[in-house]
Amino acid sequence: MKGYTGKILHVDLSTGSMEVEQPPQEFYRRYVGGACMGAYYLFKLMPPKVDALSPENTLVFSISPVVGAQISGSARHCVTAKSPLTGGIASSEGGGYWGPELKFAGFDAVVLRGKAPEPVYLWIHDGEFELRNASHLWGKVTGEVQDALRAELGDKGIRVAQIGPAGEKLVRFAAITNELKHFNGRAGLGAVMGSKNLRAIAVRGTAKADLQDPDRVKEMAKAAASRVREEGFWNEFKKYGTTLNVTWNSDLGGLPTRNWTMGTWDRRDAISAETYQQTMMDGSGTCWACAQACKRDIKGGIEKPWKIEARYGGPEYETVGMVGSNCLVEDLNAISKANEIASKYCMDTISLGGVIGFVMECFEKGILSARDTGGLELRFGDGAALVAAAELVGRREGFGDAMAEGIARLAEKLGPEAGRLAVTVKGKEFPAHMPTAKGMMALIYAVNPFGPDHVSTDHDGGIAGEPDETLQGLGIYDGKVPPHELSPVKAKAVAYTQRAISAIDSWSVCQFCFNTWSIGKFTDLIELINASTGWKYTMQEFMQLGERRINLMRAFNAREGFTSADDMLPERMFADPTLDDGPRGGAVVDRESFLGAREEYYRINGWDPESGNPTASKLREVGLAWVQED
Amino acid sequence: MKGYTGKILHVDLSTGSMEVEQPPQEFYRRYVGGACMGAYYLFKLMPPKVDALSPENTLVFSISPVVGAQISGSARHCVTAKSPLTGGIASSEGGGYWGPELKFAGFDAVVLRGKAPEPVYLWIHDGEFELRNASHLWGKVTGEVQDALRAELGDKGIRVAQIGPAGEKLVRFAAITNELKHFNGRAGLGAVMGSKNLRAIAVRGTAKADLQDPDRVKEMAKAAASRVREEGFWNEFKKYGTTLNVTWNSDLGGLPTRNWTMGTWDRRDAISAETYQQTMMDGSGTCWACAQACKRDIKGGIEKPWKIEARYGGPEYETVGMVGSNCLVEDLNAISKANEIASKYCMDTISLGGVIGFVMECFEKGILSARDTGGLELRFGDGAALVAAAELVGRREGFGDAMAEGIARLAEKLGPEAGRLAVTVKGKEFPAHMPTAKGMMALIYAVNPFGPDHVSTDHDGGIAGEPDETLQGLGIYDGKVPPHELSPVKAKAVAYTQRAISAIDSWSVCQFCFNTWSIGKFTDLIELINASTGWKYTMQEFMQLGERRINLMRAFNAREGFTSADDMLPERMFADPTLDDGPRGGAVVDRESFLGAREEYYRINGWDPESGNPTASKLREVGLAWVQED
Repeated sequence: MKGYTGKILHVDLSTGSMEVEQPPQEFYRRYVGGACMGAYYLFKLMPPKVDALSPENTLVFSISPVVGAQISGSARHCVTAKSPLTGGIASSEGGGYWGPELKFAGFDAVVLRGKAPEPVYLWIHDGEFELRNASHLWGKVTGEVQDALRAELGDKGIRVAQIGPAGEKLVRFAAITNELKHFNGRAGLGAVMGSKNLRAIAVRGTAKADLQDPDRVKEMAKAAASRVREEGFWNEFKKYGTTLNVTWNSDLGGLPTRNWTMGTWDRRDAISAETYQQTMMDGSGTCWACAQACKRDIKGGIEKPWKIEARYGGPEYETVGMVGSNCLVEDLNAISKANEIASKYCMDTISLGGVIGFVMECFEKGILSARDTGGLELRFGDGAALVAAAELVGRREGFGDAMAEGIARLAEKLGPEAGRLAVTVKGKEFPAHMPTAKGMMALIYAVNPFGPDHVSTDHDGGIAGEPDETLQGLGIYDGKVPPHELSPVKAKAVAYTQRAISAIDSWSVCQFCFNTWSIGKFTDLIELINASTGWKYTMQEFMQLGERRINLMRAFNAREGFTSADDMLPERMFADPTLDDGPRGGAVVDRESFLGAREEYYRINGWDPESGNPTASKLREVGLAWVQED
Repeated sequence: MKGYTGKILHVDLSTGSMEVEQPPQEFYRRYVGGACMGAYYLFKLMPPKVDALSPENTLVFSISPVVGAQISGSARHCVTAKSPLTGGIASSEGGGYWGPELKFAGFDAVVLRGKAPEPVYLWIHDGEFELRNASHLWGKVTGEVQDALRAELGDKGIRVAQIGPAGEKLVRFAAITNELKHFNGRAGLGAVMGSKNLRAIAVRGTAKADLQDPDRVKEMAKAAASRVREEGFWNEFKKYGTTLNVTWNSDLGGLPTRNWTMGTWDRRDAISAETYQQTMMDGSGTCWACAQACKRDIKGGIEKPWKIEARYGGPEYETVGMVGSNCLVEDLNAISKANEIASKYCMDTISLGGVIGFVMECFEKGILSARDTGGLELRFGDGAALVAAAELVGRREGFGDAMAEGIARLAEKLGPEAGRLAVTVKGKEFPAHMPTAKGMMALIYAVNPFGPDHVSTDHDGGIAGEPDETLQGLGIYDGKVPPHELSPVKAKAVAYTQRAISAIDSWSVCQFCFNTWSIGKFTDLIELINASTGWKYTMQEFMQLGERRINLMRAFNAREGFTSADDMLPERMFADPTLDDGPRGGAVVDRESFLGAREEYYRINGWDPESGNPTASKLREVGLAWVQED
């Protein structure tokens, strides 16, 4: 069998010992890379029921055989560990430049265990690797550290994946960044890295990705680039990026507003893609080799009243939704400042916006007052309070220390009245999509092994609209189901698109970009895989890879004690009708429909209907018999 | 959506009324053609629990969008009805020339219901269709009818699918033939056609298959042809065809011998591919547009002592095994004569050899004697008796009338002592592969909805040997399992390869030929589908098509009253050790392993673990919610 093999770097931070593994091709064919490879090492190497912030946690950075293939979308990497926020698996994708550079430096993954006795960073370059002291970097914001590392290693081309002060301080939703504006954002992976005294992984390489058919990859890259230039939607997406979502989400009733009590906001134009573009934009940012360029670059030095440092990038839709509308803040300057602070201190803007919105409602309801927060009045719509709170959380100072624990732990401390306002599943904050408006989100938020996530299934657009080639490629023909509905077909759509996306993430491919290759999407992704690896890979194998990774994650969570009780939406979703005048005004998530869809989802996955955990038989089927034994 | 649409001809034989349906593309995308489309119309149109030989049975001839694409393997069609042998669904593939001609004549399927008041044939030509009187053809052997139809319709290019006298006489394993030597052989579809007074469907057309990318199909066809010329295995397969199986099956312990009591035969060389080739072969026969040419053409007029008419073709492996070794007959001339008789009268040689072997053992055991058979001594190894018996069955004369009912009904009549010798599942005879030597056959023989079948899963070769690209394409990585073993991985291999083959049969593609396209196999099949239809089809959708067809068939059987009790091997397989000295001498099928594998197989399919029938949830998942309602 022709094909792909590579190297894995194992690092014991406690002892400083490092070794290189060269798995056989069979390993790559089964676990591939990225998200699935990360879940594999986490399950294999981490002992059960160990605290996420203890040295025994296993932190995996991983890419796939197609990363570095010089086509839009081949620049992503996954970070995996046990989450300090959920106690289950954390698995978070990031774009940027770091993943391809790791490939060029000679590795497909870095697996880190233990805890360094003092702050360190890992320096990987052209097959070499060393741990270096990072005491002088500790406490500095991310931009300073990136500059310092490039200077001290004497190479401006170095790519740095790092945490910020938030990760050092173990903020439970601390993130990992590269190039200051690309993030493995969610579920507190930055805190895990911080708990290991690992500030950064700097990589540099001069090798190229080893492709079986580089000419075919080149052709596909060219086609993708011309689609972005010529086709309306992709061209618009380049111009506006993810912030396009603001308007249509609000119009659907899907834009979280005022701590999840509204889904349509009459002030949505203040934070829309057009307003953003007209007032702040300085072009489209990009990841390595990308023709799509969906990232927001913003003008430096915007001052009304906050000065923004452009190098930290502009807010994406999720930030605008969670730090903006969910806090009722309509000032894009304040939103951008909070975003910049989150970038510098390196924390997840979704959880940050979630916890601030929650606190704002606690203020409104009189559960919290300025006495509790050291004087800070956290009121809905107050941009200055938002910016101040972000800084406090990043530093874990004052009331920021309590907020840094996330909504669930803070609500637990505040008591049941606050608990009724807490919108989390598995202790993790929701991304910016109202479950009352999007049935698929309602279900995936509940059942996803790494907690509520907006990029683990399709967004209802496909299933609600005309059947498109993508969904038919998955065997989902049932179109025209209203977005909010939670019928059995939605459970199937969630299960199938979750598998497909899980496989996309295991191949470390950008979920946006792969749409630009051609109209075929999945057929072209399979072609890229085959052109890269020389395998004869099929969509069936691809889907089973996705299923394998999902089962690995569920099995990890099951070992940690998770059951179907953890796959539950917060009571508020079923009980409190939304307060807006939009198309989903007055709506709740229908409890019976939700439970029915969850049952169907378990059934489609072949899991135990009571616990929602993988059966021995399903584990055997997806090639994970060893998991059962472990 | 670009793509494929076509026409379905519906015929009510009772009234003579006919109409043309033009289903929307969505219908084609969901049911495609061939085996799945056949199962769809059978389930939709046939009332439950009606006798298979009554007018209410629904008989479907169907092809797929790729049939007629002028590439090796695109020449097959499926016939579907309720089986008079099993009482469940009958679904039988055939090659030859008829399927493509139906496409050229303008149709993708012919759906026949009712019963003609007198013998008729259906004449379809370039979009036109008419029922014509066939009284003058009734009682004639197939060669005579084919000649007569070409003469009376004045066109030598007419392709005739027809039954023979066996079908007219309702032999329960009567077949349907085209070009006298290609068969939809199994489960008694010829008797269904006979019960409708329909002798033949003659087709002729001048249109071409409507392909979206004919150039790509041409390229693939060229590549396939050159592989057959240049690559060792395919070249050898062209030379020897399926009879290659005799030697290796015997050496594995897999060649049924002496009514299933032995799996290795020391006389195997007398019926081997080499002997066949040296003594009888007159080149390789072929289907339409095929470069592989795996069929056996034999010399006309061989006389030792029987004269063989070459136009009826030579015996394939299944015939050599069932009419030969299973009856202990080592005379290839006698085997060929029995084969010719079966062709002329048009009946299935597998069931024919099965029932004769069974009767021979009944003779040996003293359960039957010449008194019962009108003087015919049916002894193991007696070629003359074999030939005589074949003729009697074809005519339903003398003891042939009882044998024409098949083993199960005959054994029922003879009593429990004979019942112990009967090797059937669902009342259908086994194909020529010993379940004691091939675990996957043991399982599929039991669970297949249309009864024991040798072309509904992989043959253990793949799963037992090195993992190959085909099985990895399905997500089966677990190689090197001994062929006879019945472990959970075999259940998975059966389930997955059954789905894949079910989809191949729904696309009406030859299971042999698609291997010649290139080493990728499934990736190339998907490419052919896309080049033909203009769809963006994936292997995932393909596998779900297979699953959809299997669930349709199981649902049909469930409606007829089938349960897991019908998915059971005959007791003999568990109880009577084989009597040969080969590698599986003394072996039985291990009962616990079999039941465990069946349970795993049900579980993988998501069926009710008790009844083995599809759940409402699984039907919804595969797009068959309407089946539950029906």
